[in-house]
Amino acid sequence: MKLVTFRPAPDAAGRLGVVLDDIVVDVPALGAAIGEPLPATMLELIDLGTPGLDALRAIIYDRSNLWPMGTARPLANVKLLAPIPTPRKNIFGIGLNYAEHVEESSRALDTGKEMPKEPVIFSKPPTAITAPGDPVQHDITMTQQLDWEVELAVIIGARATKVAEADAMGHVWGYSVLVDISARDNRRAGQWIYSKGMDSYAPFGPMIVTADEIEDPHGLDLWLTVNGVEKQRSNTKHMYFKIPALIADLSKGITLEPGDIIATGTPEGVGAGRDPQEWLWPGDIIEACVEGIGLLRNPVIASGPAETGGKRS
Amino acid sequence: MKLVTFRPAPDAAGRLGVVLDDIVVDVPALGAAIGEPLPATMLELIDLGTPGLDALRAIIYDRSNLWPMGTARPLANVKLLAPIPTPRKNIFGIGLNYAEHVEESSRALDTGKEMPKEPVIFSKPPTAITAPGDPVQHDITMTQQLDWEVELAVIIGARATKVAEADAMGHVWGYSVLVDISARDNRRAGQWIYSKGMDSYAPFGPMIVTADEIEDPHGLDLWLTVNGVEKQRSNTKHMYFKIPALIADLSKGITLEPGDIIATGTPEGVGAGRDPQEWLWPGDIIEACVEGIGLLRNPVIASGPAETGGKRS
Repeated sequence: MKLVTFRPAPDAAGRLGVVLDDIVVDVPALGAAIGEPLPATMLELIDLGTPGLDALRAIIYDRSNLWPMGTARPLANVKLLAPIPTPRKNIFGIGLNYAEHVEESSRALDTGKEMPKEPVIFSKPPTAITAPGDPVQHDITMTQQLDWEVELAVIIGARATKVAEADAMGHVWGYSVLVDISARDNRRAGQWIYSKGMDSYAPFGPMIVTADEIEDPHGLDLWLTVNGVEKQRSNTKHMYFKIPALIADLSKGITLEPGDIIATGTPEGVGAGRDPQEWLWPGDIIEACVEGIGLLRNPVIASGPAETGGKRS
Repeated sequence: MKLVTFRPAPDAAGRLGVVLDDIVVDVPALGAAIGEPLPATMLELIDLGTPGLDALRAIIYDRSNLWPMGTARPLANVKLLAPIPTPRKNIFGIGLNYAEHVEESSRALDTGKEMPKEPVIFSKPPTAITAPGDPVQHDITMTQQLDWEVELAVIIGARATKVAEADAMGHVWGYSVLVDISARDNRRAGQWIYSKGMDSYAPFGPMIVTADEIEDPHGLDLWLTVNGVEKQRSNTKHMYFKIPALIADLSKGITLEPGDIIATGTPEGVGAGRDPQEWLWPGDIIEACVEGIGLLRNPVIASGPAETGGKRS
């Protein structure tokens, strides 16, 4: 299934929707209409596990596209939020997970030339999440090196503690797109949470595609454009630590919970690695896509105490 | 007020309590007894802000220690949980925030000799939190360099975005104790979340003391013992970046939310910095204290896939 979180009206709470071609089925409204309680949010559905997903799928596909009044609406007419607007912990990010990106980073940033021996893990707080279409904030008083990174996001379905690689994919609930925005000039003694964790630095969405619909998550094209100009293009087959290795490694130490998000790293083509270097500025439009999942589009806007805006250097 | 989260019965959900000398008043039970809805959890109370705290204080102190049956019990008889068992985002940690600890770290670890120019920020996920009395897990297959760090924890009360230093203390709701446990041999390309973020690596509690009861948070003794032997002793006056600076700096980029936790850094005396180096092993007892807040006591136990236990080297 293709699942979204959407706002049915301005100021309304986000609720769970199923995307079918160009319509969104309002899951809790459908539940009310048919007299069967259905989950209101993505996290509620994830918490129900495979039985919940199977039950919802059966209800949706049994209806043959006949929807009670008020339970379906055009996708183009709804305001999408991030699929999980407030996850239970910080998003896990994986650094230096595509070989060419390791190479460009070692030239441009302070990272090593060798592929890491173990996954490089950092985090982005839930407050960093930005909805599809919503802006990435460029505060000129904070950064003049705002950079892009398109990534495949893995959504955890089942609690995972010390999971073996062979069992890891059974803990994956679905996939989405996440842009790991970084203010390269805000690293702190090598720690990345501040430079990558500021408000709006995690565009996320537009939807979650459940794991059963992605035949091979290690065979997906992914790309990113700025103002329509392609900056990144690769395929998830080039990930160095594959998804089972990431889940096994993380869960050796940190219990993964339903709804946790792992951003699996970015391929080459980031702004810091270009010659000359390129950065994001107010007015720019970022479009990021992972094959089979969807296109995530976010403008960059000027923000900050004085709303001073940015200038292109 | 001195506030705890406690479990009234095995398997019961944690609920909010007020500590008065050696008793705990069960806040939601008191609400039910007097016919006035009162918050059931610490986060619910924090979300109510100063009016909520004032209202609860009035109700508690007006009762002159007369408690309806079942609404108060001996502190010694209740199982305390961490004061905020599941915060809304990862705990913020501040690295290298006491001068002598910067010095010992530069000798023993891979950090610089100079005081950082800006706060060094990292995070510990909510799954790292361990309740008072509950164990820190020592997985011998993961680490042979498990270390301690006693810290003053600041609890945020009011949402903070780009807050000036002069206004920062108005966003502090209370204080607690947090032990920042680290597996020094699990840093990843300089990132600390994995080495500091594993399950049980954040003993937290035993209570939150509200800000009104701590006259000067920069004048508190703090210390830590292992098996009764003092390893750390300092005073929060030696913090390099003081609390207003930390809140101003963090909130320049990352919105702080009610219930967010900032662990403000540790003084000298960690195991890595000792000669010879010392580490935690199964059977050890860690006691950590911040003056005016309370003593947090946690055993270290062997854990891991094979329950192989640890050995003292």
